Amino acid sequence: MADLADWRCRIDEIDGELVTLLNERASCAREIGEIKHETGLEVHDPNREKQILDRIRNINTGPFGNDELVGIFETIIASCRKIEM
Amino acid sequence: MADLADWRCRIDEIDGELVTLLNERASCAREIGEIKHETGLEVHDPNREKQILDRIRNINTGPFGNDELVGIFETIIASCRKIEM
Repeated sequence: MADLADWRCRIDEIDGELVTLLNERASCAREIGEIKHETGLEVHDPNREKQILDRIRNINTGPFGNDELVGIFETIIASCRKIEM
Repeated sequence: MADLADWRCRIDEIDGELVTLLNERASCAREIGEIKHETGLEVHDPNREKQILDRIRNINTGPFGNDELVGIFETIIASCRKIEM
């Protein structure tokens, strides 16, 4: 069994990758926001958000339970929605 | 400019990668939880959590602002803490 410092080091690496991906997701949201503004679409799209969360549940293999993972994605989606505004 | 469907497709790809990384982070948290239980350490470690969030602020290059990104990581950390329990 690796020691605490090793696991924390791995978490730091994962967090670095998460920051990159989350900011890439925010960049996509910004582009989507521009398209929505140009075409007169509403920023808030509950059907699309439901589709995203359903997909998260379907591809989740744990150890996070679906409720935990969906909770994290609800936070991510809400933050991206602000970027789209 | 790519269209809405293309950006949504990229977001779906990113979400798949996020799910994998978040579950890997949860696996690390489970291992850390076991070590803490075996060695009598407290699961809740505010100093370590502060260190993680400070690091997130330092490596963030946007477009997410630090407050948004830290908010997302607070949700991730809280979910991982439950896994450690």
